[in-house]
Amino acid sequence: MRIVALDTFDIRFPTSRELDGSDAMNPDPDYSAAYVVLRTDAGDGHEGHGFAFTIGRGNDVQSAAIKALAPYLVDRDLDGTLDDLGGVWRELVHDSQLRWLGPEKGVIHMAVAAVINALWDLKAKRAGLPLWQLLARMSPEELVELVDFRYLSDALTPDEALSILRRAEPGRAEREKSLLASGFPAYTTSPGWLGYDDDKLRRLCKEAVEQGFTQVKLKVGDDLADDVRRMRIARDVCGPDVRIAIDANQRWDVGPAVEWVRALAEFDPWWVEEPTSPDDVLGHATIARQIAPIGVATGEHVQNRVMFKQLLQLGAVSYVQIDAARVAGVNENVAILLLAAKYGVPVCPHAGGVGLCELVQHLSMFDFVAVSASMDDRVIEYVDHLHEHFADPVVVRDGRYVTPTAPGFSATMRPETLATYAFPDGPMWKSPDDNAPLRSTLTPGPGSE
Amino acid sequence: MRIVALDTFDIRFPTSRELDGSDAMNPDPDYSAAYVVLRTDAGDGHEGHGFAFTIGRGNDVQSAAIKALAPYLVDRDLDGTLDDLGGVWRELVHDSQLRWLGPEKGVIHMAVAAVINALWDLKAKRAGLPLWQLLARMSPEELVELVDFRYLSDALTPDEALSILRRAEPGRAEREKSLLASGFPAYTTSPGWLGYDDDKLRRLCKEAVEQGFTQVKLKVGDDLADDVRRMRIARDVCGPDVRIAIDANQRWDVGPAVEWVRALAEFDPWWVEEPTSPDDVLGHATIARQIAPIGVATGEHVQNRVMFKQLLQLGAVSYVQIDAARVAGVNENVAILLLAAKYGVPVCPHAGGVGLCELVQHLSMFDFVAVSASMDDRVIEYVDHLHEHFADPVVVRDGRYVTPTAPGFSATMRPETLATYAFPDGPMWKSPDDNAPLRSTLTPGPGSE
Repeated sequence: MRIVALDTFDIRFPTSRELDGSDAMNPDPDYSAAYVVLRTDAGDGHEGHGFAFTIGRGNDVQSAAIKALAPYLVDRDLDGTLDDLGGVWRELVHDSQLRWLGPEKGVIHMAVAAVINALWDLKAKRAGLPLWQLLARMSPEELVELVDFRYLSDALTPDEALSILRRAEPGRAEREKSLLASGFPAYTTSPGWLGYDDDKLRRLCKEAVEQGFTQVKLKVGDDLADDVRRMRIARDVCGPDVRIAIDANQRWDVGPAVEWVRALAEFDPWWVEEPTSPDDVLGHATIARQIAPIGVATGEHVQNRVMFKQLLQLGAVSYVQIDAARVAGVNENVAILLLAAKYGVPVCPHAGGVGLCELVQHLSMFDFVAVSASMDDRVIEYVDHLHEHFADPVVVRDGRYVTPTAPGFSATMRPETLATYAFPDGPMWKSPDDNAPLRSTLTPGPGSE
Repeated sequence: MRIVALDTFDIRFPTSRELDGSDAMNPDPDYSAAYVVLRTDAGDGHEGHGFAFTIGRGNDVQSAAIKALAPYLVDRDLDGTLDDLGGVWRELVHDSQLRWLGPEKGVIHMAVAAVINALWDLKAKRAGLPLWQLLARMSPEELVELVDFRYLSDALTPDEALSILRRAEPGRAEREKSLLASGFPAYTTSPGWLGYDDDKLRRLCKEAVEQGFTQVKLKVGDDLADDVRRMRIARDVCGPDVRIAIDANQRWDVGPAVEWVRALAEFDPWWVEEPTSPDDVLGHATIARQIAPIGVATGEHVQNRVMFKQLLQLGAVSYVQIDAARVAGVNENVAILLLAAKYGVPVCPHAGGVGLCELVQHLSMFDFVAVSASMDDRVIEYVDHLHEHFADPVVVRDGRYVTPTAPGFSATMRPETLATYAFPDGPMWKSPDDNAPLRSTLTPGPGSE
């Protein structure tokens, strides 16, 4: 049995038309997926689905990068591949020529993410298990084998990783049961987009509390007076017991970040997310020291495990926000979960966009069962957008993710979606009047203002 | 007058056949350029040429990323564009949708590099000046306007940058003259590739000394016993006064880097280059502390100014190795030159590959005339490969770069080269027997061993 095809799809949703997803750095995103399907000749009807998430223009470049991995996958022995996903990861990430395009960052790394996640989707489907459960039933030794410790050994060795995983072994079955019974805590970002007016903010905050969420998140960073007003509304509506996180989406330099957060401190923000460049490890450490006890959270744009390592070494983050498809997929996220466990920092995944909620729920649930063995201060982001496009969409009830039980990584988009939202030739984009991405090409972003 | 076309070319040289350029992480590179030509309707015969350097597979992805910038350039007013390259840089780098693909790193950032450098090439050609001289004749205010200080202000403010540039103003004319008379010091990497045997190493070291080089560089990191033997040969042939740098190309973790360099310390290495992941700012700082007085150098894979900022803030590098096309071109390199000047660290550019020597000489020469105002401990890497493909190739004589005087950025490849080395349809790649990049697709890199 072999992998016989790697097909890519440039899928874009015209979300900029509604200002869903607008924040201080991303005023008009068109949520998109550079989507990949791996097909086999096994005859069992299973395919591996995965994707990289982008926000519009450039999704074609991301798709081209995924396509460039086809020669590494097509014609490979199926069982040998799925039995050695640690080896496959190393081969793709360290390919000496492709590596030059990163190394281990940006478009080429996200391409590896899409393909690695598609392989895990396929493996889980063939095993008849949801991904979180497949991972949570692997032995500590098998899990350690998935991780590339290159560049990590000054912070985490394979032996330390083994100890962490062995320490969590005894309670696995019990935690699986509790997860299946009660799910995993979620928080909601839906009320807080910058493009929404005060009435909509008020209404959505009220709904969030009524729906059982114990944490919400507001986008900030465009205008301080607006943020003060919006935070006041949110705190007023939510009351003192609901956690309110704020998210600046990298808008500030180090000094201004500290000042801005201090100006909002009276409203008791739980964490500030992406206060500055995701590359600025030292900057995050400075901000964290100066705004304590308010926490710093980051991760959705943190490029790889080496950056997470440093953020943890410096105590620069209080919450690690893994992203399912920014770093190179499941394997690298296992490494990051282990690093976070070593440093005792809770993992609260980034989600939203398109399909990110579907993916990250598996990683948090695996973390709970087999790595950190804790739900304390752990929440998964939830945004109620675009789930209808997935075959096995997330379900959030009473402020919690309902634990998925269908086999796979929940990554499979519905075939109608792949047809309708294909760019630029699908019906959603075909009409000349609907050519938003092409027309918005020369709209300057916030950085050019 | 307008920019009327942005054309891309996937140009690859089959260098893996000779093992030129082999090192501990890149055993079989095919030096490549994702090449761009900007054409105008000015009727003056001038075009803007630029490129991103890659080492083979993935050069098509890099070319696609450059192509994705066409809508931002084509049909733009020519004078307005060339008069505001600071603004153009911000627009390209901060485009809110494209930014998601980095941000400011990897394939999309290198695409901006290629285009920005092509614009500078065009501007210099139209001004009738070599790029270094065009830059060196701009006012401090004009130079500061080129720089995006976002994320830098905790280390360097516009006012500090102005002071640095003003301090260097008085001697500009004199330094221009000395540059035109005596060029700029070079060092050579040609003797030290891992694929060469001891006799070739010995012969090339001898030639380097005879040719007047006062610094050579050896690739290390594959096998310690080999490195000890090779360093002994090099030191023996070069004598005690020639500086010998070593380059590990990211091969080590932090602890092993320190041990390996200490094992070579008896041969008095001048610097160790890329001892570990280019992303590991803290790791570089640890290594620097533990191997002093041997210096640490890095930069060819350092993704942007935010990373250079941190390396300098921590004292993690003794030599800053800017690359002409890894960060987003001339503008970002002006920022990095200013940061290095602020921290008093010499800039010794990375070169080699294809066309990198041609580009970086301009940046070092500009640095000497208008920024650091010094040549102390400053050398430009020189590798004698592939220069024959350029219309205005570098000239190195008596161990020094001869200062270029032809207008432009020396980026223009000869038309025959663009035709012959086009991948996959140029004559160099057309024959099925010559399909090295396609055949080598599944050769595992060192990371998978």
